[in-house]
Amino acid sequence: MTALNVAVGPTEDSHIVDAVKQAGGEVTDLADARVLVWIGGPDGFPDLPDGVEWVALSTAGIERFVEAGTLDGRRTWTNASGFYAEGVAEHALGLLLAGTRQIVKAARTRWAKDEIDTSVLTLRGATVSIVGAGGIGRELAPRLKACGATVIAVNRSGRPLEEADRTVSWDRTDEVLAESDHVVLAAPDTPETHHLMNNRTLALLKPHSWVVNIARGPLIDEEALHRALVDGVIGGAALDVTDPEPPPEDHPLYDLPNVVITPHVANPASGLTREMAPFLTDNLRRFAAGEELMALVDPDRDY
Amino acid sequence: MTALNVAVGPTEDSHIVDAVKQAGGEVTDLADARVLVWIGGPDGFPDLPDGVEWVALSTAGIERFVEAGTLDGRRTWTNASGFYAEGVAEHALGLLLAGTRQIVKAARTRWAKDEIDTSVLTLRGATVSIVGAGGIGRELAPRLKACGATVIAVNRSGRPLEEADRTVSWDRTDEVLAESDHVVLAAPDTPETHHLMNNRTLALLKPHSWVVNIARGPLIDEEALHRALVDGVIGGAALDVTDPEPPPEDHPLYDLPNVVITPHVANPASGLTREMAPFLTDNLRRFAAGEELMALVDPDRDY
Repeated sequence: MTALNVAVGPTEDSHIVDAVKQAGGEVTDLADARVLVWIGGPDGFPDLPDGVEWVALSTAGIERFVEAGTLDGRRTWTNASGFYAEGVAEHALGLLLAGTRQIVKAARTRWAKDEIDTSVLTLRGATVSIVGAGGIGRELAPRLKACGATVIAVNRSGRPLEEADRTVSWDRTDEVLAESDHVVLAAPDTPETHHLMNNRTLALLKPHSWVVNIARGPLIDEEALHRALVDGVIGGAALDVTDPEPPPEDHPLYDLPNVVITPHVANPASGLTREMAPFLTDNLRRFAAGEELMALVDPDRDY
Repeated sequence: MTALNVAVGPTEDSHIVDAVKQAGGEVTDLADARVLVWIGGPDGFPDLPDGVEWVALSTAGIERFVEAGTLDGRRTWTNASGFYAEGVAEHALGLLLAGTRQIVKAARTRWAKDEIDTSVLTLRGATVSIVGAGGIGRELAPRLKACGATVIAVNRSGRPLEEADRTVSWDRTDEVLAESDHVVLAAPDTPETHHLMNNRTLALLKPHSWVVNIARGPLIDEEALHRALVDGVIGGAALDVTDPEPPPEDHPLYDLPNVVITPHVANPASGLTREMAPFLTDNLRRFAAGEELMALVDPDRDY
């Protein structure tokens, strides 16, 4: 049996080192490694010796690695797709409730009862769509349903997401938006999803609708969003991601009472390796056993 | 069969009038009524003719009617206990997530990533206690569990709340607080619960703990709360109720970054009769059939 030698970079994070040991592996130099666990972005990514059979990236979105040309076809690559889904789903629910229950507005006012009392919404009986429903959607749907919402999942294939009330394929997104009270964006950033929410699609929503984005900033045309919010086309926006990040200090979205922006913390960097660790252990065991890995990077897969 | 004559006051709200008709009843003057549905507080409550057999109040808490001496033993009284439980539970979840996910802080800052990233908490694996777990607790527990929390219910009798992971009787509240990550107050305002959260009990919680109050302001000693928040004894407070209401404009709690106060809107007045209507219809049918009513006012009942 070949030893399970694993290099960890750019720094030897303790959660990751523990995860390697849990799987029966040993942390070694890159020169001796069969696996590289890379807890960082594309900057500073090392030249890979031929002995590295598998690179485990620590982010769910790998756009920046793709752009940087980091990925090659000479070995296996995994990302962390699905590893952080529960936390991100929780954040999405928190953003939606903070918006719809007018907690965002309350945080910026003092007992504005007349205004807030009449605008508090409930998820009971509301229809919430999740556009780009994969791992995060699978975790978010039951949380929304526990609050009495009806959940429509939208994904590329239309392959039913078991946890949703209904799944619809990507080409019918307009239809879904038109019947949604609220929408959560959970799709990757691709040419297809660029400015998915724009003047036209925002107008399909309702005057009370909240748009939640825990995916990628470019999914929303922020100028169109600003206009829709000012004109009352929709009710509010709760964004964990923006385009660019951070937004300029004087971004007009900051000035709107019905917008909250969290600084890309749905999956906090500070907790990332702790969250990833059990999945990495599992994947290392699969690797050692010659089984298929989780979260294989495949540009053609369905998000 | 005696006609189901129902007086509605102080104004004839359309949701309530519809609910009466749904039950086969007729809206009449108080002089001819067997039932009074009272959508208001104790001020302006009418002298009751002997023909009124049942008064249906529209609030869950009836402290003010008790204080005003409105209730008499000559007829049946009901409140709206449990009728608004789902909405209040949703608000409690929203407050807790808005706090723990640092959405409150984000609403008042601009991309404070370093600070927020390290303080985002998750409900997964967290222990949340519901003190005063009755109808609201029954609705809140499954919502919290859908987020991966362990739920401890505290009530007077210790009679198990099926939806919770564990139920503990009121006299063991200290023990429960000591093992809680977060606490939601859902108890009525009684001499027993007055200042339930005080210097001593707040100190039983953890530096990251959030206290959510969707019950009654006097359950919290606000001076002690302010001190605990300033000193980092607990993580934050999300309050839908205060003592008094509204709080003075310059209340020191308003100045803390880790406090959010919503203006008593967990059960918005604007949606109250719409929420109450189906329960009223059901109760009117029970009344007509001589069955036991829901939400009977009984000072000895277990909250």
